[in-house]
Amino acid sequence: MDLATLVRHARGDAPADLLLRHARVVNVFSGEIEETNVAVFHTRIVGLGDYAAEQVLDLDGAYVAPGFIDAHVHIESAMVPPGEFARAVVPRGTTTVVIDPHEIANVLGLDGIRFMFDCAKYGPLSMYVMVSSCVPATTLETSGAVLHAEDLVSFRSDPWVRGLAEVMNYRSVVAGDAEVLRKLQVFDGGIVDGHAPQLSGKALQAYVAAGIQSDHECTTPEEAREKLRLGMTIFIREGTIARNLAALVPLVTAATQHRFCFCTDDRQPADLLDLGHIDHLVRYGIELGLDPITSIRLATCNPAAYFRMYDRGGIAPGRRADMVVFDDLRAPKPRIVFRGGQMVARDGEMLVQPRPTPARGLRGTINIAWDKVGLRIPAVGRVARVIGVIPGDLNTLELHEPIASEEGTAVTDTSRDIVKLAVIERHMASGATGLGFVKGLGLARGAIASSVAHDHHNLVVAGADDESMLTAARRVARLNGGMVAAEGERVIAEAPLPLAGLMSTAPVETVRTQVDDVLRAAASLGSRLHDPFMTMSFLALEVIPALKLTDRGLVDATRMEYVPLWVE
Amino acid sequence: MDLATLVRHARGDAPADLLLRHARVVNVFSGEIEETNVAVFHTRIVGLGDYAAEQVLDLDGAYVAPGFIDAHVHIESAMVPPGEFARAVVPRGTTTVVIDPHEIANVLGLDGIRFMFDCAKYGPLSMYVMVSSCVPATTLETSGAVLHAEDLVSFRSDPWVRGLAEVMNYRSVVAGDAEVLRKLQVFDGGIVDGHAPQLSGKALQAYVAAGIQSDHECTTPEEAREKLRLGMTIFIREGTIARNLAALVPLVTAATQHRFCFCTDDRQPADLLDLGHIDHLVRYGIELGLDPITSIRLATCNPAAYFRMYDRGGIAPGRRADMVVFDDLRAPKPRIVFRGGQMVARDGEMLVQPRPTPARGLRGTINIAWDKVGLRIPAVGRVARVIGVIPGDLNTLELHEPIASEEGTAVTDTSRDIVKLAVIERHMASGATGLGFVKGLGLARGAIASSVAHDHHNLVVAGADDESMLTAARRVARLNGGMVAAEGERVIAEAPLPLAGLMSTAPVETVRTQVDDVLRAAASLGSRLHDPFMTMSFLALEVIPALKLTDRGLVDATRMEYVPLWVE
Repeated sequence: MDLATLVRHARGDAPADLLLRHARVVNVFSGEIEETNVAVFHTRIVGLGDYAAEQVLDLDGAYVAPGFIDAHVHIESAMVPPGEFARAVVPRGTTTVVIDPHEIANVLGLDGIRFMFDCAKYGPLSMYVMVSSCVPATTLETSGAVLHAEDLVSFRSDPWVRGLAEVMNYRSVVAGDAEVLRKLQVFDGGIVDGHAPQLSGKALQAYVAAGIQSDHECTTPEEAREKLRLGMTIFIREGTIARNLAALVPLVTAATQHRFCFCTDDRQPADLLDLGHIDHLVRYGIELGLDPITSIRLATCNPAAYFRMYDRGGIAPGRRADMVVFDDLRAPKPRIVFRGGQMVARDGEMLVQPRPTPARGLRGTINIAWDKVGLRIPAVGRVARVIGVIPGDLNTLELHEPIASEEGTAVTDTSRDIVKLAVIERHMASGATGLGFVKGLGLARGAIASSVAHDHHNLVVAGADDESMLTAARRVARLNGGMVAAEGERVIAEAPLPLAGLMSTAPVETVRTQVDDVLRAAASLGSRLHDPFMTMSFLALEVIPALKLTDRGLVDATRMEYVPLWVE
Repeated sequence: MDLATLVRHARGDAPADLLLRHARVVNVFSGEIEETNVAVFHTRIVGLGDYAAEQVLDLDGAYVAPGFIDAHVHIESAMVPPGEFARAVVPRGTTTVVIDPHEIANVLGLDGIRFMFDCAKYGPLSMYVMVSSCVPATTLETSGAVLHAEDLVSFRSDPWVRGLAEVMNYRSVVAGDAEVLRKLQVFDGGIVDGHAPQLSGKALQAYVAAGIQSDHECTTPEEAREKLRLGMTIFIREGTIARNLAALVPLVTAATQHRFCFCTDDRQPADLLDLGHIDHLVRYGIELGLDPITSIRLATCNPAAYFRMYDRGGIAPGRRADMVVFDDLRAPKPRIVFRGGQMVARDGEMLVQPRPTPARGLRGTINIAWDKVGLRIPAVGRVARVIGVIPGDLNTLELHEPIASEEGTAVTDTSRDIVKLAVIERHMASGATGLGFVKGLGLARGAIASSVAHDHHNLVVAGADDESMLTAARRVARLNGGMVAAEGERVIAEAPLPLAGLMSTAPVETVRTQVDDVLRAAASLGSRLHDPFMTMSFLALEVIPALKLTDRGLVDATRMEYVPLWVE
């Protein structure tokens, strides 16, 4: 829309398209509730007050707030592509998300990032991208792609790119690693998100000095306070696994409130459907004692300011008409959602068709040379390094356990909850397969396999016997990706994730049912973990201590080096 | 400095250049006072805490705050160029100014703007430019230059340019005038400052919808509240004439504090020397009841955030080492000032040489065709429109007064305080001269003349007789600009302003003395106004009601059209 038209409508010399009458506007600038009307023309808010309009919607005193913004989310964790993700979150009041397409970038590199862009275009949700900074996470794994600093340069000037996504290899930054500093250099002067769990003292100051501006990994008020004092913006995360809102809320005071944003990071389908999205954080924040307008600020003007998105984040003339309508200020539950002036959701239902996933889709990403893959572990020792699961924690223990053998082959021992773990390279069909043992998954028999294995997303499979493991793993490959539970030759349950082995083409409700199915199947095989698939997906992530397995072998994730399976 | 070096020093693996030990750091992020040390390397702060350093300065518990930022200032009003301005304000703790080179742009156009850049380069004060948006203010005057939208385009990508300066012709914006909208379009997505005194209601909403983001013209809390609610950032101004801090302080609350900045707009030498600069606003804000950290925020992190200057505004690793040291948090009076890690001022004195004004200087800007200039007013009527001075107000009255004549020539009447006013075009030597009468300057005899006449800065002269007027006016021209008081053939006092007719080449203390001299001389001629030169300089500004005089004639500044001198 040209400025002259905008100005004419703001002046009131031409009728608005829509007037929201009798609104209680949440004014995030002044921190007040204003009883007024909101006039919308085309995609913009043109004015507040008495305006003539083609269409009038009487809100009868309902509240109107700016559309919610998720400051940091990996859509892949919802296991659906952006269009379907929009269907899940837009009715919850989310109108803008800032994504890090980190998972798909590890599988498909630049093509993966572009796929996310393509899915989001013309859809009912504004999607901005922070370009993935750590693909792959380390050199101790085989990812589907490697992104060097120069690969990121062209994104710097893309209007849909806001900056560089969470710089996870914080140790490299602090150490002054040339490659990661080059990436920071590419985004010099721009926005750079951080990820620095428990980093403190001078190491943290070095990290901040490098230009990193936010952190979403704080778990305690002390940790967040130290980062806040150094000028970092704190993203308060409430995801499916990591939930930090209750711990951090006490830090959000009148003096500091503008330094915090809300984000979900990773939310699985069940949580999106049962709890909601950013609206859930807004409500939960209020429940925990935040002033409602403050809680809404963390979801609106604060992330807009941090991400330099000056066209949104408030209800004011000239800004995008991204708005949510709700009835209870103490528990905002979006009843109507506008995005760019269009009513896109009402009573929890989308009113517009999200853009379908591009028909061209993605090439198959499960490329395994099965003839090179073997699961046999020769019994060349008696005591092995075994990955010890800590329930509810992404960290693991390095256990040293005696391993029995049969005819020269090391075998599992379900009586001691020790099963086999394999990570099979699935990008380049190299046949590379890491083999080891894990204790604590609880599998009494059968196997579970998945193409979701952070961050390289190779095929990970754990099982009581090789036959079940191969059944599950081969089924994952046949599905072009997914989660499978199997016993012997039989597949018990499956959740197909054919898009990069990470996301489904089904509706989010279907995905949720399928995930419930595979979890139930895993329970039937003996696991008592809340989500053994998720636990397993992090057994392959070698940036979190202590012992992890990649397709290249066992990794001491504290010292960041390979270690042999056998201790003696 | 490369990132690797910065990180190494922040990590503490290489000694800092300087450690400020036993500091009480004003943490504008967390809103706390932190007792710690501040380590500086080269131009940057590298860390807070225990660091080894080449040099240690024990502050013995003194406070350290970020360097102060003036969010909006016309340096020309200080009557000295940027280098000398720096000498006046840097010892007061100002390390960054955002200027609108509006006065010199009206005289010299793009050359004038570039001159300001040149003066500021490599100097001890960071100077950022908002590009002047209204040159000339209207078409009812002759300015030295005209800046069209396309003249501004190349500034858009200049790293020293932050955006478009105060859009003063707010009526044109609201009316949707194509030329002003084109200028806004040039800076679309960038920062655009406003200037909209008393604009309200739908007109104000249209102005905001056009993308204008700040205002420094609020004089009442009601006016500021309306603008705040619309998402504007409010610059609280405390200049030499306009002083709004006391009126606006009540609006700055915990909920709104991050939406305000401090600015001086126009401060003359005497005020800079006697009161100070932004430090004066910080102290005065505290005196008026602001929490000291809040008051400091309005001078540091808030303007830094508004102007997207992410490298400053706080004491944190990686940020520019722009810092002020003071002893009393209730009345911060900068004792030491660091700019980019260098101690640039101590105990009110500059420690570094400000950059001298470029030797090349500026071409002479007083170009008058004296042979075409006449001051005679033929007595073709009996009652004339006379500009009525309102003491302490830039507005004037339109008076209708009988004017006596001698031999067909209209004459002054000092018994009724009516003297002659002339505005002589001084840019193009066109000879254009506006003539009229003014009541209320208080001149009993003699004349005062000046090349400062907002905004076109033609030569303005007022006097009891033509001879005195010509003496004063010709002396201004001979000086290449300045302020002069004369009687008959005698020049009584003068303040030369040879740089564009606006600024002196002398030290600011000398300029202050010279200005005091000409004011004393004006008083000796009978004027009892606080500053008749300043009053006169606004008699030529046709954007402020009611009756004004430009080189083209009398202007009804309410209806924005020429009016005849004679009523009957």
